[in-house]
Amino acid sequence: MSLSPDLGFLSAIEPFGALTAIIDFVGVAAFAATGALVASRKEMDIVGFALLGAVTGIGGGTLRDLLLGLPVFWIAAPAYLVICVVVSAVIFFTAHLPYSRYRLILWLDAAGLALFAVVGAEKALIAGAGPVIAVAMGVITATFGGVIRDVLGGESPVILSREIYATAALAGALAFVVLAALDLPRDAALAGALALGFAVRGAAISLGWSLPRYRPRPGRRPEDV
Amino acid sequence: MSLSPDLGFLSAIEPFGALTAIIDFVGVAAFAATGALVASRKEMDIVGFALLGAVTGIGGGTLRDLLLGLPVFWIAAPAYLVICVVVSAVIFFTAHLPYSRYRLILWLDAAGLALFAVVGAEKALIAGAGPVIAVAMGVITATFGGVIRDVLGGESPVILSREIYATAALAGALAFVVLAALDLPRDAALAGALALGFAVRGAAISLGWSLPRYRPRPGRRPEDV
Amino acid sequence: MSLSPDLGFLSAIEPFGALTAIIDFVGVAAFAATGALVASRKEMDIVGFALLGAVTGIGGGTLRDLLLGLPVFWIAAPAYLVICVVVSAVIFFTAHLPYSRYRLILWLDAAGLALFAVVGAEKALIAGAGPVIAVAMGVITATFGGVIRDVLGGESPVILSREIYATAALAGALAFVVLAALDLPRDAALAGALALGFAVRGAAISLGWSLPRYRPRPGRRPEDV
Repeated sequence: MSLSPDLGFLSAIEPFGALTAIIDFVGVAAFAATGALVASRKEMDIVGFALLGAVTGIGGGTLRDLLLGLPVFWIAAPAYLVICVVVSAVIFFTAHLPYSRYRLILWLDAAGLALFAVVGAEKALIAGAGPVIAVAMGVITATFGGVIRDVLGGESPVILSREIYATAALAGALAFVVLAALDLPRDAALAGALALGFAVRGAAISLGWSLPRYRPRPGRRPEDV
Repeated sequence: MSLSPDLGFLSAIEPFGALTAIIDFVGVAAFAATGALVASRKEMDIVGFALLGAVTGIGGGTLRDLLLGLPVFWIAAPAYLVICVVVSAVIFFTAHLPYSRYRLILWLDAAGLALFAVVGAEKALIAGAGPVIAVAMGVITATFGGVIRDVLGGESPVILSREIYATAALAGALAFVVLAALDLPRDAALAGALALGFAVRGAAISLGWSLPRYRPRPGRRPEDV
Repeated sequence: MSLSPDLGFLSAIEPFGALTAIIDFVGVAAFAATGALVASRKEMDIVGFALLGAVTGIGGGTLRDLLLGLPVFWIAAPAYLVICVVVSAVIFFTAHLPYSRYRLILWLDAAGLALFAVVGAEKALIAGAGPVIAVAMGVITATFGGVIRDVLGGESPVILSREIYATAALAGALAFVVLAALDLPRDAALAGALALGFAVRGAAISLGWSLPRYRPRPGRRPEDV
């Protein structure tokens, strides 16, 4: 055990290494904050903040673990749940401070998206999944926390947003699987994939990047011609 | 086997004891009734009643079992599913009788909320979970049946309601975990926690109890001052 | 191994036999197409198409496997995921071709509904479930892909539709369980149940078949009489 005592909870996720654990932990906190900020938009009470924060923070990883047949990560390491509650409580008392809560949600969500995309892909690879499943797990881990947040919070699901969203998760997860296959040191692969996923989503937020969207073609009914 | 033959299905949940099994069973029936009443508001057919009733009745407990890595309770004991269908069919033919279906949904939901909060917490403790996870399982079991009902029924999720909701589940689950830790006889702990959870939610419904909700602060933009 | 090499992925689901595997596969493709068509209505990008297509195609079967405690089918056989992505990409470039996308969604959904109802029931029977659970698994497998599609796509859940929907899945699953109990050859039982489920839903779409729906009775308040 090379971990200091106050990080003892990380030992439950030791197989994934300290870096992955830290990435996972920061991603959980970032997503929990977005859930709590949605709760503030709905003017919920502090228990509602904690519930929506926790569901958003751990929802994507929970789905990943259930699909892979792994024990659910936060059952073995309740610290994840505790950090969601703490983050939500802090947001309850400070949500009025940021100039634009909407932009803060977007950027924290972007951080969580990139973090979960790489950690989801890595956890799948370690569990023995092939590259297709690993990429899918990265995308699922990254997107479903936000999807559950929006469905429970009565918002329009973020995957319907105009700008690149799931694509950024795909870029991060795919990059990690490719870099890992190239036998790059794991920390470098994690960092590179993380940077790519965040850069893609960040560009979508700040520059309005989007992929070509499906557009209805001109009608073929007589009255449309 | 101290159970009479016609309660033979309870043997599948024997480890949790007859009282827990009865509480669980009544909770499933109460939640199934709320699901069927939402189906009546949407003017669904009888199969839709059964589907929405079953999903609401067993949804929270299903999620609890999946998260804990336990076999899903109603797969081993299909009587839970049967009671959901029976309750839903009864509601299909009698939903016009209550003076206010809306209030009936609220009160049955309150009963299910309290029942599932304690049984969810106990099932988690028996499965070896610590106190934090046990409380979380109580809250999840109690709230997610109603959340799934509202999402599938196209209603606004009940956790967004103005009055205390998840907080009542938290009170019941927390009370049970504390009382159990104090080595109270299990039946007394169950009864006490159940009464507390129901009283808190009941007060919220009839007296309009609520926790302080997040409120937008005065703006800090020049034009708001 | 009687399967040709290019169908090698089917070996992962070999216990269910080639016919069940083909039915399952066609059902996944049909549902994936409905998910992608909903994505086209929302004017999503190609990654959004793939995400919504995949969730719809594999969502119902995923829930079935989790409930039964089986390994999730597409983790072991990623070809299911690949076909969802391929179908979604094809739809992205061709969704303008059908005269009425809405009717195409309805009919593909009907095919998926019937296919998943029988394959869901069979997979449950093979896993050792009794008849009640097998029928429930058929209904769940058949309906939840569409439910998840509608929730994520921001559409009104299809189970709230005026015409027979869940009832068709129930008819197909029930027919298969009964025919299997009568010791009919499995292929005949599959084909018969499939035809029944599709015929019931098809009649609902083209003839407007519906079960009697719950209707509010005349009021009993003085001012209503």
